[in-house]
Amino acid sequence: MAQDFVLAIDAMGGEMAPHAPISGAALAGERHSALKFLFVGDQGVIEKERKKHPSLRGNSEILHAPDQVPEDARPSVALRRGRETSMFRTIELVAEGHSSAAISGGNTGALMAMARRGLKAMEGVHRPAIAGLIPSAKDPVVLLDLGATLQCTATNLVEFAVMGTAFAEIVRNKPEPSCALLNIGEEDIKGHEEIREAARILYETELPGPFLGFVEAHDIISGKVDVVVTDGFTGNIALKTAEGTAQLFRDQLNTTARHGARARAGALLLKPALRSLFRRFDARLHNGAVFLGLDGIAIKSHGRMDDRGFANALLVADEMVGHDFLQHVRDAVSRVKGATGATGGEMT
Amino acid sequence: MAQDFVLAIDAMGGEMAPHAPISGAALAGERHSALKFLFVGDQGVIEKERKKHPSLRGNSEILHAPDQVPEDARPSVALRRGRETSMFRTIELVAEGHSSAAISGGNTGALMAMARRGLKAMEGVHRPAIAGLIPSAKDPVVLLDLGATLQCTATNLVEFAVMGTAFAEIVRNKPEPSCALLNIGEEDIKGHEEIREAARILYETELPGPFLGFVEAHDIISGKVDVVVTDGFTGNIALKTAEGTAQLFRDQLNTTARHGARARAGALLLKPALRSLFRRFDARLHNGAVFLGLDGIAIKSHGRMDDRGFANALLVADEMVGHDFLQHVRDAVSRVKGATGATGGEMT
Repeated sequence: MAQDFVLAIDAMGGEMAPHAPISGAALAGERHSALKFLFVGDQGVIEKERKKHPSLRGNSEILHAPDQVPEDARPSVALRRGRETSMFRTIELVAEGHSSAAISGGNTGALMAMARRGLKAMEGVHRPAIAGLIPSAKDPVVLLDLGATLQCTATNLVEFAVMGTAFAEIVRNKPEPSCALLNIGEEDIKGHEEIREAARILYETELPGPFLGFVEAHDIISGKVDVVVTDGFTGNIALKTAEGTAQLFRDQLNTTARHGARARAGALLLKPALRSLFRRFDARLHNGAVFLGLDGIAIKSHGRMDDRGFANALLVADEMVGHDFLQHVRDAVSRVKGATGATGGEMT
Repeated sequence: MAQDFVLAIDAMGGEMAPHAPISGAALAGERHSALKFLFVGDQGVIEKERKKHPSLRGNSEILHAPDQVPEDARPSVALRRGRETSMFRTIELVAEGHSSAAISGGNTGALMAMARRGLKAMEGVHRPAIAGLIPSAKDPVVLLDLGATLQCTATNLVEFAVMGTAFAEIVRNKPEPSCALLNIGEEDIKGHEEIREAARILYETELPGPFLGFVEAHDIISGKVDVVVTDGFTGNIALKTAEGTAQLFRDQLNTTARHGARARAGALLLKPALRSLFRRFDARLHNGAVFLGLDGIAIKSHGRMDDRGFANALLVADEMVGHDFLQHVRDAVSRVKGATGATGGEMT
């Protein structure tokens, strides 16, 4: 196997495992024939599922791992007792250079703990972040952090901006991505002190695109900016609020469309046009949250994702590996490092 | 004028002033004939607008105030220099007992600063909160804080829970309202230390309904709980993310519905059914964010609200006054005060 395109896949992580990871790999392999996969988990279970996909015979291997991380495990416990788990082994494959990226649909906290332990911090980055895509009126917006670092210093936020814009530029193929800090008002006088300090630094920092200062939460959705930076608590709340609202709208629309013959006829006529609307909010197309600030590529697939969603997470990994994303981030971080000061804590 | 039902209205606050406040009062007066209004602002401007509404001749008076608070004013500056503003005078009418509630569509920060100065803190409450309604799959959910207290101690969050559930029970007429803390996971191990400490206290606190522990942001929208408590930064982000997502869905649906003859015909047939869907997300019906933790009633109408929205804020005020909401909150706070400990800072 050529090392460059081997993706290590935790075949046991997520509600639809092992189907979603393995069938997802088959789908991703159809799209990019150069991809190779290393499935990690219970050998018998994986072999049984893999048989359903003849295309995987030539481009995948299996690494047996007897245990798996429970969905409700505390990260610290998973880390201490999890050395025989499929998740730990998946990360280890990247840490030891056998694979180019690790993808798992399992417990996010455990995956981040293992990734930090196994892959180590990237030089110059104090804390990791999780970046994901959120639907907007224009292109999907890169939002970070989604839950890795709940309370952030100004330095953390600045580093997230550097890494998030690199992701938008290199992986999302967005030239000169604009970037802003999430705040509760656009004026410079609002919000926490850390956010205002981060804004002051970012106005002086060389980023691949313009820094727009503060945006409010409705501006994420309007697509006013390409990359939105916030702490992990707030980012998680914003993402899940948007998902919940989109879900409510979709459910209500479905209910509405069944309300009487007239509505049913209307819904039938509207259906083709509505497909693109629903597509914009299809979580599968935005699947694959990337861990930033580590010296290796790890990607979290949503726990409830099906095979099509999992395939998207694999294609994100492929983009990151193919464009040598890590080196781009290392370069970007070292370029701006002088400006970030020394207010951030070390990664622990 | 009977003191009980005089609502002091900042006639100059908000983008559609003086039309929205004055026409809104006329609409509210049609609904509740016992309401009386005291319009505060430029006398000439108010008189001109009031003439358009003959019904206001018998149930309103005018208090002249020459200045107004700019929309972008810093709260501290507005407070220092704003004694002649319509907003300050509106609050003063409540502080001095001439009116039962103050309603303004102006600058939120300035209004909160003036309300805190004029109305003072309620005994036993360390910090104020702003509570509002957010659409959900079931009834609208009470969400607080929306921006008064950006960083919260456990004591602050507990007090918000006590006041928010009182609001749901007394003003929203929701018997035994359930309550939860917003967090990034349902497990007890997640989130900030303050939130976990608040949860520990709330499990032991007597509330009008059940305390459900932690909910995630998508659970706000699913209507899993009646009252959701969080800090002012996070609450503001959640509310605006939901508003932005609903707006995007609505815009996209409108665009979709114009896409070709087939879609137009479908949209026409669906229209009556869609009306109730849009109604659920109509911000006007949820207008009127209430300031909690002060010894007087102050309500913020959204700055971009029209007369129908402003009328709703007035009807919220009417409910609060009519049900003697303040006394209910005082009783609730004093009942649970022993349990909240002494970790919160004094209101400054």
